[in-house]
Amino acid sequence: MSLETRKAGIVGAGGYTGYELIRIINTHPGLELAYVQSEGLAGRPVSSVYPWMKNDTVFSPRDELKGLFDTDIVFTCLPAGESMKIIPQLVDSGLRVVDLGPDYRLHPASAFESVYKTKHTDARNLQNSVYGLTEINRSMISEASVVANPGCYPTAALLALVPLSDIVGGSIVIDAKSGTSGAGKEPTLFTHHSEIGENIRPYSVNTHRHIAEISEVLSNITGRTQPFMFVPHLVPIVRGIEETIYLYDTDASEAERRLSSFYADSPFVHIEHDCSLNMVSASNHCFIDVRQAGSNTILLVFIDNLMKGASGQAVQNANIMLSFPEDAGLTAAPSGVGR
Amino acid sequence: MSLETRKAGIVGAGGYTGYELIRIINTHPGLELAYVQSEGLAGRPVSSVYPWMKNDTVFSPRDELKGLFDTDIVFTCLPAGESMKIIPQLVDSGLRVVDLGPDYRLHPASAFESVYKTKHTDARNLQNSVYGLTEINRSMISEASVVANPGCYPTAALLALVPLSDIVGGSIVIDAKSGTSGAGKEPTLFTHHSEIGENIRPYSVNTHRHIAEISEVLSNITGRTQPFMFVPHLVPIVRGIEETIYLYDTDASEAERRLSSFYADSPFVHIEHDCSLNMVSASNHCFIDVRQAGSNTILLVFIDNLMKGASGQAVQNANIMLSFPEDAGLTAAPSGVGR
Amino acid sequence: MSLETRKAGIVGAGGYTGYELIRIINTHPGLELAYVQSEGLAGRPVSSVYPWMKNDTVFSPRDELKGLFDTDIVFTCLPAGESMKIIPQLVDSGLRVVDLGPDYRLHPASAFESVYKTKHTDARNLQNSVYGLTEINRSMISEASVVANPGCYPTAALLALVPLSDIVGGSIVIDAKSGTSGAGKEPTLFTHHSEIGENIRPYSVNTHRHIAEISEVLSNITGRTQPFMFVPHLVPIVRGIEETIYLYDTDASEAERRLSSFYADSPFVHIEHDCSLNMVSASNHCFIDVRQAGSNTILLVFIDNLMKGASGQAVQNANIMLSFPEDAGLTAAPSGVGR
Amino acid sequence: MSLETRKAGIVGAGGYTGYELIRIINTHPGLELAYVQSEGLAGRPVSSVYPWMKNDTVFSPRDELKGLFDTDIVFTCLPAGESMKIIPQLVDSGLRVVDLGPDYRLHPASAFESVYKTKHTDARNLQNSVYGLTEINRSMISEASVVANPGCYPTAALLALVPLSDIVGGSIVIDAKSGTSGAGKEPTLFTHHSEIGENIRPYSVNTHRHIAEISEVLSNITGRTQPFMFVPHLVPIVRGIEETIYLYDTDASEAERRLSSFYADSPFVHIEHDCSLNMVSASNHCFIDVRQAGSNTILLVFIDNLMKGASGQAVQNANIMLSFPEDAGLTAAPSGVGR
Repeated sequence: MSLETRKAGIVGAGGYTGYELIRIINTHPGLELAYVQSEGLAGRPVSSVYPWMKNDTVFSPRDELKGLFDTDIVFTCLPAGESMKIIPQLVDSGLRVVDLGPDYRLHPASAFESVYKTKHTDARNLQNSVYGLTEINRSMISEASVVANPGCYPTAALLALVPLSDIVGGSIVIDAKSGTSGAGKEPTLFTHHSEIGENIRPYSVNTHRHIAEISEVLSNITGRTQPFMFVPHLVPIVRGIEETIYLYDTDASEAERRLSSFYADSPFVHIEHDCSLNMVSASNHCFIDVRQAGSNTILLVFIDNLMKGASGQAVQNANIMLSFPEDAGLTAAPSGVGR
Repeated sequence: MSLETRKAGIVGAGGYTGYELIRIINTHPGLELAYVQSEGLAGRPVSSVYPWMKNDTVFSPRDELKGLFDTDIVFTCLPAGESMKIIPQLVDSGLRVVDLGPDYRLHPASAFESVYKTKHTDARNLQNSVYGLTEINRSMISEASVVANPGCYPTAALLALVPLSDIVGGSIVIDAKSGTSGAGKEPTLFTHHSEIGENIRPYSVNTHRHIAEISEVLSNITGRTQPFMFVPHLVPIVRGIEETIYLYDTDASEAERRLSSFYADSPFVHIEHDCSLNMVSASNHCFIDVRQAGSNTILLVFIDNLMKGASGQAVQNANIMLSFPEDAGLTAAPSGVGR
Repeated sequence: MSLETRKAGIVGAGGYTGYELIRIINTHPGLELAYVQSEGLAGRPVSSVYPWMKNDTVFSPRDELKGLFDTDIVFTCLPAGESMKIIPQLVDSGLRVVDLGPDYRLHPASAFESVYKTKHTDARNLQNSVYGLTEINRSMISEASVVANPGCYPTAALLALVPLSDIVGGSIVIDAKSGTSGAGKEPTLFTHHSEIGENIRPYSVNTHRHIAEISEVLSNITGRTQPFMFVPHLVPIVRGIEETIYLYDTDASEAERRLSSFYADSPFVHIEHDCSLNMVSASNHCFIDVRQAGSNTILLVFIDNLMKGASGQAVQNANIMLSFPEDAGLTAAPSGVGR
Repeated sequence: MSLETRKAGIVGAGGYTGYELIRIINTHPGLELAYVQSEGLAGRPVSSVYPWMKNDTVFSPRDELKGLFDTDIVFTCLPAGESMKIIPQLVDSGLRVVDLGPDYRLHPASAFESVYKTKHTDARNLQNSVYGLTEINRSMISEASVVANPGCYPTAALLALVPLSDIVGGSIVIDAKSGTSGAGKEPTLFTHHSEIGENIRPYSVNTHRHIAEISEVLSNITGRTQPFMFVPHLVPIVRGIEETIYLYDTDASEAERRLSSFYADSPFVHIEHDCSLNMVSASNHCFIDVRQAGSNTILLVFIDNLMKGASGQAVQNANIMLSFPEDAGLTAAPSGVGR
């Protein structure tokens, strides 16, 4: 694949999603890492931090934006409330942004504020931002200035639920299991190996902040509130999310037909039977396994939290924004040892 | 604790539940391992196989029952259809049996046959057998000849659901996660380390054989069918089961009150908040964490599959049958490194 | 086993070794937890923190020593340099102490100071302290006021090397692998699950502070310096240490004979073939597997780092100090699912 | 990278190394999977087995070689003794072969026979085969008909030792740790998750068959026998090998200089400090970390057993045989979440 090269910048590149972007861009046929910023790594060339890569770009410190304004696409990987401080300036300079944080996912500003307990200061770009669930919003993404890249749990849930929104006749339960990299790079007792090594830990039981994100997208699409229960669990793996979704009063054959049809032309979403998380690890793929349970339907959804659930989807969105093939730089097979 | 010593026998002691019984009995203040049978280990003293134990009992081969008839309590750890071949003879000899296999859990014989695809040949003892969920059936267990020790998934589900059967107003979903030891000692690709090591694998989706067991007990108690969906998942830990149970139209405060009251005098079942699987690993404890989700209730249930989910509960039942304190030999704290 | 009850106190009980002591003492037939101190848990009863235990002792804050002076044995679980601040006062009050930290392991004070970069302020008790490698120093331990409980790596290395010190004819290499609980409860990137989950990380290559401890004991015994190389590796398990020790010019048959003879009456040290770490997990046992490699010998040594490598051995030492059977409270089999 | 497309065939593609080849070739810019054989998968298209790949090639059964003779390069992934049955026919047809099994690694035939207890039946090709440690034998590999792709442990050991062979003044110890995928796809108790999940297991202590392979290469290069001790350990990770190599009487600075110089132009072998296995997982990279230990040297070597230790190196060799850039198809960064 030979593509015209476009320049990419990453702000907040010291965490897991930032590194994952570097990792993808490093072998992307059309993207060049022109700017990369991380306070903790400032002054060091990329190849000295990650010596398996040849890349002489030097990490910039926090306030050094030289080079950033020269890029074609910017990825922001910042904690809640931080990207809204920088994005107005980027947009005003004509840059296009994929924001991997939560600042532009919820609408209106008050919705963000009630979930993240932080004042929203960029209502203008919030209003114009596009929710970056690629397979759902492709055409809007292609034109967007600011793409709000979805959270990891919402990506898995919504890829399964959006095409089914008008055939789900009853209650919805989403039981999610995640690897520890979803909790980020900051060491805590919660993700301390000795504590989670042989453990299973449910957390944020029905109170996780991603609930609002799933709810908003579902209600935007269906025009009505579709309530669900949601419990995430931390399990001792590094990468990946599995969600088991229970749909009452939903025809499984019809569900499978709709999903297969909806994703027929999507290179990363597959409707298959007999799946496991191994089939997506460290890749941008998503598998959805549809099962009948009497008059109900059970969906088993698998993604890698850092790829389709974060940086992989961010590059998928950037590909669309830059008129690259949707799968450019994302064709790697999963790292599991087989099916 | 100083107890009169009673003799225990184990039939089918070569697998994980058999060894777990040996491990427990080894430090039990009232039980002595008088007979132990395993075709694969036949002829070897226990201490040569498990050199951390002082025990000169020699493993008997399959058909050598000498010593067995001299015991006070027999544990049978055999595959489906096998214990029913030996238990009639044991009962006729006046022995009391805790059967860790599924042969005596489902009633009538036809229920067993339809689930396990095997002819039931001991209807007489099946009819008199007592389902060994200790906290529910203590008094019947104390008198029983044959105790059908519950399956691992049913133990966790039923401990949570039985006390709530008449306040659950709506649908029930049981999402279960299990360590690999639940699949037994026989190597398969399903439990091959390379395949499950960084994986999550849902299996027997809504078709697992334990569904019939949970259903029967619930309907016996409530007098009506209480349907539920059930999906077990294999996760890369060795020991333990976590079940997240979603109860629609169920008052969480009332649920917590009932559970706390029901288990007030039970040494192994605890109603607590902020739990994880670490709190039960390699111990006989069960924790139930009750959470409100609007007008619904979410239960988080934690057991060790080989202890409370198998051999630990078997000894707990034996303790009751032999008039020992219920927790004799079972007081060990979990092996996790903290809460 | 019915023993006269003696009172135990734990200072610095909030970490992993402190909890492990609580866990052991909870089912110890002769010890009662009379005092337990942890700044972070101050004011809470033990059973509210660890609800699987019935124990109403309340955690004391740092400076509240009431109750401590009433005990028969004190365990101190404090960082380097901290226990020497409190032990003089305890000894002067007639208390006997097992110190799980490093303050009393190296002699003279200057040896400690050069390794731990901290001034030693208790030369008097340092001089009289006994190195608590139980199997080597039983009689001195029985009389000691202060027992310096060995480090985890030295325990495994010295149990294997001490009996062989005069038949090792050549160089020694000690390659150690440890679970993450050995690094303690403080979260760090080094022990962050995402970083160590599928990783192997050598660290402190030939510079680990335990090298001085191993060296001192070996040279005390042999009267000469016995140099060795030592590399510890962090591997993604929670509990346990394996050390593979390469002994040049050492007769394997003679080594096995000596080890078997040396540990013939020791309940926890076993000379066996075909061992793995599973055989010791969460137990106080140690297995040593002796292999011939031409004219050289290879030793495979297995312990649980928190039990025989820390709190288990501390209780073993306390048992000897209090004239209890050496294995009182320590008879639990490993938590592995088989051999 | 735009390369002329060459056709690849894989014989014995049902195991882990076979799949890994499929995974690499799938995104290789110059290779096309023209033939793939696996008895167990016969008749199925690649994309039905591995649905994350678009590939309609159908797995051939054992004796169906149609399509194979039309390829430019053949990879054979067969158990010991099996590839020698097919390779003569391939070579006689003018095909070039990379053999991932052990049949062509040891010379002469009797050396193979004494280690693998199997008669060697292809002395002719054995004599002309080239040992495929790419960085050592690049020019011979470029001309070879049969490349004997190295074993996983030898790859790590020899990459470190070959450049140092004339400065190692004393004894050598190689302590290796491997993930479970190195043991292959066949389920055994040894690799059963419940048995190895929280375990460390040394095996084939100083008797592993890879010892002969390391010895032969070292003695070919140095002209003398260089004895070493070698103990591999199974640890609970899926992918990767770490070897800690202790070199007595070896100058560490000189060692580091030599290694840096030797690998200056090699894209996959890096001499770095502060390394861990994460830096190579699922990639073809190798890191060597050189440490001084007095007058001795310690080397820490990291590879992925299925990539640089098997299929990655096989493709690297094929690249050289086909005049592709050495890193074609192999540029992916490791799958770890950071350094």
